[in-house]
This record gives sequence, structure tokens and C-alpha cells, in this order.
Amino acid sequence: MSWLDQITWTDDGLVPVIAQEWQSNDVLMFAWMNREALALTAQRGEAVYWSRSRGRLWHKGEESGHVQRVHEIRIDCDADVVLLKVEQLGHQPGIACHTGRHSCFFQLLKDGAWQSVEPVLKDPSSIYK
Amino acid sequence: MSWLDQITWTDDGLVPVIAQEWQSNDVLMFAWMNREALALTAQRGEAVYWSRSRGRLWHKGEESGHVQRVHEIRIDCDADVVLLKVEQLGHQPGIACHTGRHSCFFQLLKDGAWQSVEPVLKDPSSIYK
Repeated sequence: MSWLDQITWTDDGLVPVIAQEWQSNDVLMFAWMNREALALTAQRGEAVYWSRSRGRLWHKGEESGHVQRVHEIRIDCDADVVLLKVEQLGHQPGIACHTGRHSCFFQLLKDGAWQSVEPVLKDPSSIYK
Repeated sequence: MSWLDQITWTDDGLVPVIAQEWQSNDVLMFAWMNREALALTAQRGEAVYWSRSRGRLWHKGEESGHVQRVHEIRIDCDADVVLLKVEQLGHQPGIACHTGRHSCFFQLLKDGAWQSVEPVLKDPSSIYK
């Protein structure tokens, strides 16, 4: 049996994926994969997600150049969530977020409101042309 | 407008949640919250999830004593994923997984198979009585 068969896929054939930075352990982003995306990720050693909004495979960094080199692929105890340990390439420090920030998780709950607490490292208009 | 209204909930009224250890940055587990769970989490400073299998609120640690003290609540750029930074209480080192392991993400893809790479810190039968 393939390792892919051991994953508990959603009814839509997807699995949630957490991308964590290899060196810092920072959580960079959250996305989804289908079976083909996960197979390609393992094969290429670069993160390939399933874009639910675009309805197609999404090789992370295909537009921005911010490719994720995969160091580890893990699953949780229920085999229904994937954890990727990645090196975020293309910029130093790594930019995973489409807003030009290191991590997508830049909004912190403080005094009853969401506050942006991480800097924009690169203007998004210069990332996506 | 409440900070809770700014979250993009699923059609089922849920949001995916990543729990990350405050000190080590280890990703401990992945779960779901509904609006009430997230409100309670912020109010109590302890993680309260929505158990989809049991169909009820789940105060993490209610049986095991492995409560998660919340240090930060973050959301991502799309406001549809929550990241909790928590202290995993009740055992040293912290046990987040029902298998008695530190993290739920203990299965690593290696040579085309999932391999358990993290030790069981405490026998689950002595955690859940």
C-alpha cells in the first residue's frame, strides 16, 4: 500500500497542510493538498499545493519565486493533517505570505482587536508582476 | 465590530486551528474551533476546541490534565486560520497528543513509508482513566 493511501482525505479529496520553516520553526502558512499535489511535493522536494480558489495545482513560488524546499513531510496521529518542514527560498529572510511578509500569521489579537505585528519585507507589487 | 466577526468561518461555522508551543515553536496539534470555542479560549486563556467527532466543546486537558495555556492568538492573511501559541501544561516536557507524545506530528515520511520518530512520554492508559 502506498504511503498516500494511509492519509485520511476529506470528502473533497484534500488534506490540510501546515508549512513550518525548517530553521526557525516559524509557522509560515496553511494550505491544502490533493493526492497529486502531495505526490508531486514528495517527488520534487518542493511544495505543491491545491489552490481551492483557483481549482488547480499551485507550485508555491511559481509567480513570486518564493519556492519552498521541503526537508520533512509529517502527518499527525489521525493521518489527516500534513506538516511540511520547508526552507523558504527566494528572499532572505524568507517570504511565505502574498502580502510580502515572512509568515501569513502576522495578525495578533491584542486589546480585543487584530493588530499587524510583522513587517512587510517586500512590496507585493514588486513580487507579483 | 467584534474581533470574532472578522474571522472567515467555514460553512459549518468552524475555523482550523494550529497549536504551536510557545517556548520551542514546535507544532503540537491541529484542531477546530467554533465561535464559542474561540471566545472561551480568549476569555479563559486556555485552549477550548470544537470536537467534530464528539459534536461538543472540548476544553483541552479536561480529561488528561494536559491543559494549554494560551500566550498568543493569531490569524493569517485571509483570516480563515488561527494560530495559537501555547504552553503545554501537566507534564514536562509537554504532552499534546492522545498517544502520549509531545506532538501529534510524530510520523515522518522516510523511504516511502510513515515512520514514528518521536517517543511516547507517558502511557496513554495512565493519562485517560
